[in-house]
Amino acid sequence: MEIEKLLQDGSCTSPAGFVAAATTCGLKASGNSDLALVYSERNCRTAAVFTQNQVVAAPVIVNRETLAGNRTTIRGIVANAGIANACTGAEGVANTRRMQKMAAFNLGCGPEQILVLSTGIIGIQLPMNRVQAGIEAAAGELSRANGRVAAEAIMTTDTRPKHLAIQVELESGTVTIGGMAKGAGMIHPNMATMLAVITTDALLAPNQLQAVLQPAVNRSFNRISVDGDTSPSDTVLLLANGASGVAVADKQSIALFARGLNYVCAELSQMIVRDGEGATKFVTIQVSGARTEADAHAVARTIATSPLVKTAFAGSDPNWGRILAAAGRAGVAFDQNQVSLWIGAGVPTELQLVAQGTPLVYQEADAAAIFAQPAFMIQLDLGLGRATATMWTTDLSHDYVSINADYRT
Amino acid sequence: MEIEKLLQDGSCTSPAGFVAAATTCGLKASGNSDLALVYSERNCRTAAVFTQNQVVAAPVIVNRETLAGNRTTIRGIVANAGIANACTGAEGVANTRRMQKMAAFNLGCGPEQILVLSTGIIGIQLPMNRVQAGIEAAAGELSRANGRVAAEAIMTTDTRPKHLAIQVELESGTVTIGGMAKGAGMIHPNMATMLAVITTDALLAPNQLQAVLQPAVNRSFNRISVDGDTSPSDTVLLLANGASGVAVADKQSIALFARGLNYVCAELSQMIVRDGEGATKFVTIQVSGARTEADAHAVARTIATSPLVKTAFAGSDPNWGRILAAAGRAGVAFDQNQVSLWIGAGVPTELQLVAQGTPLVYQEADAAAIFAQPAFMIQLDLGLGRATATMWTTDLSHDYVSINADYRT
Repeated sequence: MEIEKLLQDGSCTSPAGFVAAATTCGLKASGNSDLALVYSERNCRTAAVFTQNQVVAAPVIVNRETLAGNRTTIRGIVANAGIANACTGAEGVANTRRMQKMAAFNLGCGPEQILVLSTGIIGIQLPMNRVQAGIEAAAGELSRANGRVAAEAIMTTDTRPKHLAIQVELESGTVTIGGMAKGAGMIHPNMATMLAVITTDALLAPNQLQAVLQPAVNRSFNRISVDGDTSPSDTVLLLANGASGVAVADKQSIALFARGLNYVCAELSQMIVRDGEGATKFVTIQVSGARTEADAHAVARTIATSPLVKTAFAGSDPNWGRILAAAGRAGVAFDQNQVSLWIGAGVPTELQLVAQGTPLVYQEADAAAIFAQPAFMIQLDLGLGRATATMWTTDLSHDYVSINADYRT
Repeated sequence: MEIEKLLQDGSCTSPAGFVAAATTCGLKASGNSDLALVYSERNCRTAAVFTQNQVVAAPVIVNRETLAGNRTTIRGIVANAGIANACTGAEGVANTRRMQKMAAFNLGCGPEQILVLSTGIIGIQLPMNRVQAGIEAAAGELSRANGRVAAEAIMTTDTRPKHLAIQVELESGTVTIGGMAKGAGMIHPNMATMLAVITTDALLAPNQLQAVLQPAVNRSFNRISVDGDTSPSDTVLLLANGASGVAVADKQSIALFARGLNYVCAELSQMIVRDGEGATKFVTIQVSGARTEADAHAVARTIATSPLVKTAFAGSDPNWGRILAAAGRAGVAFDQNQVSLWIGAGVPTELQLVAQGTPLVYQEADAAAIFAQPAFMIQLDLGLGRATATMWTTDLSHDYVSINADYRT
């Protein structure tokens, strides 16, 4: 996809009218920055996608309530890292409401105009005096220059901040879409979670905003997997403040805006996979020839989360029987005699291993050389239809086990 | 459950009228025995449960056809280890039919009276001259004493043979149920697969046999998980030759026989989990308080297959947030404020961590001491209903990654 302009060091403050700040209030054992504010000088129309987990963190509960009553005048986000405020019962929900009020007081708006994000350890309560001190300090530091430091403050086990911004040229003018995300690939719901904040100065109707966000999330954040474990806190927020003065209302503009939003979501989600701790490989799984996109996605997801497939990636072992066996348990009906499989270091994939169910003769060294690359692609065609889906995943390495087995000890 | 009599060194030849043999024909790189025959001196009524995977090995294709035409006069099983004959196309199916004919010729029955099992590497063809030599050699060695060596011959990465037999006292007499299984916990579909052969000298109607086998498998082999990967070859066979002269036809006898069969299936399936390579922990996951058994099973299965939960087991880290987060993504609706969680080294579980959604205060050392045991139990109550399900699983250890990443290199 061609993008009109990728901004250098772009972030959630690249769109007009957005400022941010970050501070250290003592929620992370590392002593790194741990609290961020994002503030819009104008009211924002807001769309959101939350975790589908039945166990939801206190901020998800409160944000759902807030957005049920107000999708048009959101002004700010307060985010902390270090403590997830999940599995914290009624006290946790009360603490999220207190964060909302503290941020509103310091930003000069109503609590119903504030959204809250928390990420970190599950099952412990936030030290609210520290959070209050952090919000007060950050509110005095709001600036357009702080997009990157805000992205740093929401990191947990991430090794680098994740942010970008693009400009999209529409017939009626230029709009900017910026964003930040955190998450070491869902590797650590205990000390992580996938969060993303996307901002834009475009002017869109609230319903239109949700209508473009959901498919963008479905094809980006919902297409990445490190271990298949979702978090009680997973959240993607999209705030549109209209500060560009450019309305995105006609069909062509909406399509162009959606394309830009898809790009930002895809980039942020792939940043998460590439930063997955323990990950040594970045693997694209493309399933084609399915009857429906849902079928293609189910097969791709099962391959992308199979421990046997992912350990084979780690070992650079082109053990394709595992890929077919994983596909076969995805709950999607197909005829194994119609299945073809290719692998490759690039697009198009260059080495075919299976043709319509029959294993082909190939040089094992050629296949192993592809799996030894830091990034490669698996392409599985089911031979049933025209639907396609892509997932991005990592290998399952010794470091993954070390990080997760030994984390709290 | 009280079992009337667990036989010493019992196996699939413990029931009257069954003999077995094993030989080495050169299918395993290790040079260990790799081909087994099980033969019944009388016709067997036969029930079977096969993999639900869309990708099925050639023996599964052929066995389904054979049993569709004949569930009453099965006489023997030919099983090989080392090569799975899966993803082998039309040639693989033809080779399975040749094995069926070779065994029938050497055992003096028709090919429609023979079932075939293959386990091992996916995607390569069987060397049929070796298989033929193996079948001929084994057919000369059939004996009641060979139950254990048959169980050894079907091993792949298993570290020990898995076999047992029990006697069940019915009003009309005593029947014996024996069995053998292989599989290092589904850890290696590449070089494994879960196979089980269960034999009995009881006399049951074919429909009744299938009616007792399916629920026994559902609560045993379908309740174990090492990594959630199913194999294209997974098969459980139940052969009943009636040699005891004891008919199992009335309601009470069927219930007692089913209880015995459940015990044999549960024992064989737990042997598989305990022998899972890389496994250092044997963990029982019990989910109670669900609306339906299917719901309880779905939640238990998601916990039992979560990489984050299983790495926490490996690290002896009682990181209960991961257990709740896994439960929450099982696709089962529940209220997180009704959920309670206990852990323990025995039954009943002794340490409660969460009470109706609220984390309790406990000593971290007490929880860690339980997770440091070689066997422990997780009990999650959803607080919704009365249905319960149990899964048996292992930890996800460094050895698991080593075995699966480095296996073919």
